Amino acid sequence: MKSEHIPKATIERLAVYLQILGNLGRDGVNIISSDKLAQACKVNPSQIRKDLAYFGEFGVRGVGYYIQELITAIKQSLGIDRHWYCALVGVGNLGRALLRHNEFARRGFIIRGAFDCDQDKIGKVESGLEVICSKRLKTKVRDLGLEIGIITTPPERAQRAADYLVESGIKGIINFAPARIAVPEPIPVEYVDYFHQFYALAFHITLSQHRA
Amino acid sequence: MKSEHIPKATIERLAVYLQILGNLGRDGVNIISSDKLAQACKVNPSQIRKDLAYFGEFGVRGVGYYIQELITAIKQSLGIDRHWYCALVGVGNLGRALLRHNEFARRGFIIRGAFDCDQDKIGKVESGLEVICSKRLKTKVRDLGLEIGIITTPPERAQRAADYLVESGIKGIINFAPARIAVPEPIPVEYVDYFHQFYALAFHITLSQHRA
Repeated sequence: MKSEHIPKATIERLAVYLQILGNLGRDGVNIISSDKLAQACKVNPSQIRKDLAYFGEFGVRGVGYYIQELITAIKQSLGIDRHWYCALVGVGNLGRALLRHNEFARRGFIIRGAFDCDQDKIGKVESGLEVICSKRLKTKVRDLGLEIGIITTPPERAQRAADYLVESGIKGIINFAPARIAVPEPIPVEYVDYFHQFYALAFHITLSQHRA
Repeated sequence: MKSEHIPKATIERLAVYLQILGNLGRDGVNIISSDKLAQACKVNPSQIRKDLAYFGEFGVRGVGYYIQELITAIKQSLGIDRHWYCALVGVGNLGRALLRHNEFARRGFIIRGAFDCDQDKIGKVESGLEVICSKRLKTKVRDLGLEIGIITTPPERAQRAADYLVESGIKGIINFAPARIAVPEPIPVEYVDYFHQFYALAFHITLSQHRA
């Protein structure tokens, strides 16, 4: 690791590189030139070199990148060459969809605990997990080795879910609820709000119609 | 509209401002200083002024921002002061969760057509919509006035879904499938991949453990 100050956009692009490299690897490709990789990722080659330079030296001049080597290096750099056990708080429609989504486990994010405050949901089984009362998070985080909390509650309950997670000793939070949450300084929070993308798209369509 | 070259990060922040302003408005607040707004949005005040400057002049010196006025102006700027009719392609777990998610309609993105290629799904009703064969997208996009396509297929079917949408005359695409798609130049595509956030979180937790 060469630097701690890695731009968020770089991390987002690394996720894209990883996706493309994974597809290429599955197609049996072993080596790829930086130009071809850049083309497949829809960025320019200097951008890829700059992004990877944060993490070390990759690629062989005149040859390109060894795909498996690069995948391993990116995963190590991001800290996703290991499993992360997750707690999901809020077993509504979105929570249930995430619990059913195999992609999480495939990428190493294993949801081992499902929590909710609703008495009608507690005790029911969702995707093989018994829904547990959120007040029991503290014990479960310790017993199950949970490190990441996923909030999928309605917006007005997101802060309470965050409070339970913080008290339980969780190391980081992904918030899918459309609400800002406050947590103590050292705990990183990432927001997932796909309305950003809807707004951006509406904006681009509107602009292109003004031009037309 | 002062500029067409508005950074993506600005649009993402506008979405956050909108969320915070909406909450303040519902709490009965009419006016807010730029410092307080910046604090609530967790950015610095100069960033807010810079972001809003792309769209015109807002706020009254020494007073702050009129909340409803600012909400209206941001919505107009983004093109979300109107309804957008959407086609959802891929009625699996994620697709169903999005169909059930009231937030879309509340924010003006109304899913009016649900499409799938699976014979077992076609004809079934999901959240009040009959699932229609994806091959019929062209007619339906025209008849229902659909402008935005939402792809929620498995990754290997995302390109085919995109092809159907492009042929049907859709104006823009939001792709939730973990796969890059190729579409003709004028059609904007936005990717929703919440693994970016998971990777970023894993990275930050790993870094803080190295420091500890």
